[in-house]
Amino acid sequence: MTTSTEGYDTAGAYVTTGESFRRDTNYITTRVTADGRDGYPVEPGRYRLVVSRACPWANRAVIVRRLLGLEPVLSMGICGPTHDRRSWTFDLDPDGVDPVLGIPRLQDAYFARFPGYERGITVPAIVDVPTGQVVTNDYAQMTLDLSTQWRTHHRDGAPDLYPEHLRAEIDAVNRLVFRDVNNGVYKCGFAGSQEAYERAYTRLFARLDDLSDRLRDQRYLVGDTITEADVRLFTTLVRFDAVYHGHFKCNRQKLTEMPVLWAYARDLFQTPGFGDTIDFDHIKKHYYVVHTDLNPTQIVPRGPELSGWLSPHGRETLGGRPFGDGTPPDPPRPDEVVPPEHTAAAFPSAG
Amino acid sequence: MTTSTEGYDTAGAYVTTGESFRRDTNYITTRVTADGRDGYPVEPGRYRLVVSRACPWANRAVIVRRLLGLEPVLSMGICGPTHDRRSWTFDLDPDGVDPVLGIPRLQDAYFARFPGYERGITVPAIVDVPTGQVVTNDYAQMTLDLSTQWRTHHRDGAPDLYPEHLRAEIDAVNRLVFRDVNNGVYKCGFAGSQEAYERAYTRLFARLDDLSDRLRDQRYLVGDTITEADVRLFTTLVRFDAVYHGHFKCNRQKLTEMPVLWAYARDLFQTPGFGDTIDFDHIKKHYYVVHTDLNPTQIVPRGPELSGWLSPHGRETLGGRPFGDGTPPDPPRPDEVVPPEHTAAAFPSAG
Repeated sequence: MTTSTEGYDTAGAYVTTGESFRRDTNYITTRVTADGRDGYPVEPGRYRLVVSRACPWANRAVIVRRLLGLEPVLSMGICGPTHDRRSWTFDLDPDGVDPVLGIPRLQDAYFARFPGYERGITVPAIVDVPTGQVVTNDYAQMTLDLSTQWRTHHRDGAPDLYPEHLRAEIDAVNRLVFRDVNNGVYKCGFAGSQEAYERAYTRLFARLDDLSDRLRDQRYLVGDTITEADVRLFTTLVRFDAVYHGHFKCNRQKLTEMPVLWAYARDLFQTPGFGDTIDFDHIKKHYYVVHTDLNPTQIVPRGPELSGWLSPHGRETLGGRPFGDGTPPDPPRPDEVVPPEHTAAAFPSAG
Repeated sequence: MTTSTEGYDTAGAYVTTGESFRRDTNYITTRVTADGRDGYPVEPGRYRLVVSRACPWANRAVIVRRLLGLEPVLSMGICGPTHDRRSWTFDLDPDGVDPVLGIPRLQDAYFARFPGYERGITVPAIVDVPTGQVVTNDYAQMTLDLSTQWRTHHRDGAPDLYPEHLRAEIDAVNRLVFRDVNNGVYKCGFAGSQEAYERAYTRLFARLDDLSDRLRDQRYLVGDTITEADVRLFTTLVRFDAVYHGHFKCNRQKLTEMPVLWAYARDLFQTPGFGDTIDFDHIKKHYYVVHTDLNPTQIVPRGPELSGWLSPHGRETLGGRPFGDGTPPDPPRPDEVVPPEHTAAAFPSAG
């Protein structure tokens, strides 16, 4: 059975009765590197990063690109929040066609490289613009390569998100966060049995408790600056109350009821490069509309109240230097600003 | 199309695409009265109240029976939390048969009175034990009759839940609470369109905001004692975070995030006769397992953390006399105690 990174099979089902959710982690592992060893050298203007603002895995790349200031050298195509079995489309663009790649569906770039490609058509993907072929959809390696292989193109004042001397610790944290949190919420939501769900739920909240302990007196996960580890935890936390809490039944508490993690997540949200990439409208629509085997009515909840994301977090008192010796990124490019009606401030109390 | 009080049609569907949820309010309106005008006079030991602890409408009758001390004169049969299209069963009883009525399914009592009965087989129902025939399932009238028609059998110190001089106000509050809250949560959950859902959501939270205002400086909804109005609001509030917030998408906030209502609900929960009727296990199982068109996986969430129900509420400072000139009821009969593993204290933090 073929599954996408998000976990649905070729028949469009996300849940397999009686089974735990298994993420297909066989990605296209070709890399874009400084030395071009895989045939794809780093080159300004040559590649296009294709994302959906709904997707937590793509969100990592969107944030890292922003923090490193790679916008001028690596363009970005944004897919709409919902899709059918044929996966992501450029339905937000004029005539439903990506203006740079000239294709209506992300699968066209996959098929251009691998005719009949049978695995998931996933975001984030890096596409080679001249050939229209996908280079990689290996999201875990992708952000590390943006940090390490694209270094000559980083903006002045870009932070080092993957500093050499901290890599072992960052990798160790990332492994646990991936297993229990990033993928853990999907294991809750797509569980095919009560037992599989409860196992995932227990591991998820045990890990969140551990992370709360770790972050109680320490502003960031590793070292005293923002790193790749924070990016990866953030993209799950920012979706927690909006979708995972209800839709995936990750409901011991809301994020807003876990004081340390809630303050930590708000701190990052309010840091340039994080919150300004978040489209809550796309996030909610994607999960509730696409996963028809979890939400057959496809009705999208109006809640939760999200304006709390903008409230003071108090984490500055813990010290830490968000960008190390660097500086925050400039505001997003005008054509990449999240529509105001999709931001946290747009989801206030009703009534 | 035939719909039950809970709203599913004869094909077992709860949601009708494109439509608002409509509750069939054509109940069996025969009454058990002091004067026996409908052929069913109040008589100790003659009737059996059949309930499910999962059901908010039945919960009203369970609470009122407790508060008034009617246990010795009106026995109670408890159906299991889940059921198929043929509705409630006595699957918790030895051999799956109600020990007093001698029937496995509540529908048997309905059919005994009305062969081929086509409307919903609903709880609460009052059954005439000698004939095995259902008398009434008109839950709204039922609790008022327990208060007014069964008065000679009330315990010493029973409160007056429906005092004459407050009836107009109680009725007015009940009408709004029914429309926007008790039934409003179902209108959210069973909405057949995004528009119908949003309309119900807006009315629900607007009403909850109004009720918060009303209860801010006043301990109970009407007058200074517990009345029928409090019973009716309580049975929805106590289910709010456990099921309506996620399953029915009533997710602007959790009840725990609405301070006045949360304190009000805890105050009642901790009052004898309220919280001791609540089986959170039955509540969660019922909604998540039975409504397969909302939750096809039938997986029951492990959350939320519920031990907060036992925390101090501080509402005593508002004054009020819970039982007026009366007294609290004794603890539940041993055979009617909710199993400890189904109570709020049994749903603590995981991990």
